[in-house]
Amino acid sequence: MMFEFHIEATDGNARVGSFSTPHGEIFTPVFAPVGTQATVKSLTPAHLEEVGATLILANTYHLFLRPGDQRIARLGGLHQFMVWQKPILTDSGGFQVFSLAQINQIDDEGVTFKSHIDGSWQRLTPEISIAVQENLGADIIMAFDQCPPPYDREINERALERTHRWAERCVRAKNRSDQALFGIVQGGVFADLRRRSAEFIASLDLPGNAIGGLSVGETKEEMWQVLDLVNEALPRNKPRYLMGVGTPYDIVQGVARGIDIFDCVLPTRLARHTTALRRKDRLNLVNASYAEDRRPIDDACACHTCQHFSRAYLRHLILAKEMLAATLLSIHNLFTLISLTDEIRQAIRTKTFNSLLEEFTSP
Amino acid sequence: MMFEFHIEATDGNARVGSFSTPHGEIFTPVFAPVGTQATVKSLTPAHLEEVGATLILANTYHLFLRPGDQRIARLGGLHQFMVWQKPILTDSGGFQVFSLAQINQIDDEGVTFKSHIDGSWQRLTPEISIAVQENLGADIIMAFDQCPPPYDREINERALERTHRWAERCVRAKNRSDQALFGIVQGGVFADLRRRSAEFIASLDLPGNAIGGLSVGETKEEMWQVLDLVNEALPRNKPRYLMGVGTPYDIVQGVARGIDIFDCVLPTRLARHTTALRRKDRLNLVNASYAEDRRPIDDACACHTCQHFSRAYLRHLILAKEMLAATLLSIHNLFTLISLTDEIRQAIRTKTFNSLLEEFTSP
Repeated sequence: MMFEFHIEATDGNARVGSFSTPHGEIFTPVFAPVGTQATVKSLTPAHLEEVGATLILANTYHLFLRPGDQRIARLGGLHQFMVWQKPILTDSGGFQVFSLAQINQIDDEGVTFKSHIDGSWQRLTPEISIAVQENLGADIIMAFDQCPPPYDREINERALERTHRWAERCVRAKNRSDQALFGIVQGGVFADLRRRSAEFIASLDLPGNAIGGLSVGETKEEMWQVLDLVNEALPRNKPRYLMGVGTPYDIVQGVARGIDIFDCVLPTRLARHTTALRRKDRLNLVNASYAEDRRPIDDACACHTCQHFSRAYLRHLILAKEMLAATLLSIHNLFTLISLTDEIRQAIRTKTFNSLLEEFTSP
Repeated sequence: MMFEFHIEATDGNARVGSFSTPHGEIFTPVFAPVGTQATVKSLTPAHLEEVGATLILANTYHLFLRPGDQRIARLGGLHQFMVWQKPILTDSGGFQVFSLAQINQIDDEGVTFKSHIDGSWQRLTPEISIAVQENLGADIIMAFDQCPPPYDREINERALERTHRWAERCVRAKNRSDQALFGIVQGGVFADLRRRSAEFIASLDLPGNAIGGLSVGETKEEMWQVLDLVNEALPRNKPRYLMGVGTPYDIVQGVARGIDIFDCVLPTRLARHTTALRRKDRLNLVNASYAEDRRPIDDACACHTCQHFSRAYLRHLILAKEMLAATLLSIHNLFTLISLTDEIRQAIRTKTFNSLLEEFTSP
């Protein structure tokens, strides 16, 4: 059945599952590469297949502004447009409106903002966000939410109430039965707000639940505390999505607290900034020490980049400002995170997740 | 035997051949993509395999300056450095010195110039060019030449004598037996200079001969006249390489005049400037008429890009300034030229080259 979450194995709070979508199963824990503008920067869909991606994320805010969700609908929807036949998730546009756009007005109805592309005035409401996401046609769509800075209690309290009303309106606005709507828990760093939000979002009985407003300035300790209490309140039989989080350390720690889905721009953004992610450290390949280093980024890595290219060559591409540098580093960085989730699933199945967790002692 | 040129079939002056190198056979007529800085911009070696590339070109001038030929030698040579196990050709550095660098001094000994990268003073002579190319380790290397503007007779006459003396010095300087040195015919648009040059270069009895200083400002008619008379003077049993030329029209016209090898930055440069090459026209994909065009660039094209992606998506990538646009257009543009050479070989084998030629009536 569609949007069914089947838990195959558990180890403590960590679990291995599968979530069925119109474009196939998502095996969890999963890391979703971010394809902001309907492309995971510098990679072809074939590269994404090769690194093992199943779920990818696209940004409603960006696609709403360019090329426009109605245009994408006329072109057959996002899967056909960007040539990705596996599952896609779109966010609601909320996070980008609050972080990228110049906001004119925010009230209980919605948000009016200036496009960062052409300065035109645009409007998003829960109903518009859902209509846009229905035009895009992703498998998983997100409720429109307000994501305030994490430490101001008054703002968080007000934003939380608004986010909850907006979530209800999203549920009512939704028409398509082939898309799963996920609600988003907010509440900043405040335990009682987070608990209240998790209980409310859980009560909507949606096919999946997300935790937003983390990794936006709070400490790791605060993030883990929020996750612990939110996941206690969220139903165990639905997938839990920790939005915008994705270092190797954060993924392992998130899984330990019951998270199933992760996404983050980090691996591809680091790649474009000359940095290779490894499980426990990073290499900045600009470093002169790599100038004649014949080794791959990681001897133990099975990715296309590590199987073929030396650090010396990658450094040369970077210094020569060649586009191939971003491509090869993106392949490696995504493979690092996606193969880590493969390993996590295997560890949970064999009840050895704790020893994997112990390897990751620092961010 | 190494560097043997075997002519398999002819049709008029057009011929199908194979040239044996330490990294495999080159089937001619061949179009070589340009990998200026040890990468064909925006493409992985796997993409190059996929578009059917056999021979690729790298620029001695650029690699001499960065990362340095000695460094590449220590890293195992260019094939290993850039992970391309098929044939590579390096130019001599001459053309770039005369077109990109600020020249301090040019005399019969060589050229002193300022690096366009860091402003440092550098020197190339025939002996240094050969030493650099031996460090790089390409299968085909080129004699160091002077390429003057095509219309000044006095300058061309002087440059020609110098180019001939330099060619002799390159022959003497060469040590490696696993590289084929090609001489270069110069002489601008002047028939007598071109004939003299072709006869001199032919007399060196090198494994292949090149024609330089064309497609640098002269008319097409002048180019074809030069090719006609040069190819009459060059030995038929050696490959002929027309340097820096590569539109579909120019390739077909060159083959008709006995050319076997072509290279050009055009297909990848056009790709980075939003333009798709087709056999008889070009599409600038920025054009608003493509905004909702679901068709591929070319219905008849079998390349990865045309098999998967719409003009509408390519236009979106371009407007969104996404790197993937350059990658997908480069794949298409290179495939267009390389598959044209496949078709040319087939037409020559079946003695139908003239009807192919008739399709290409204008540049």
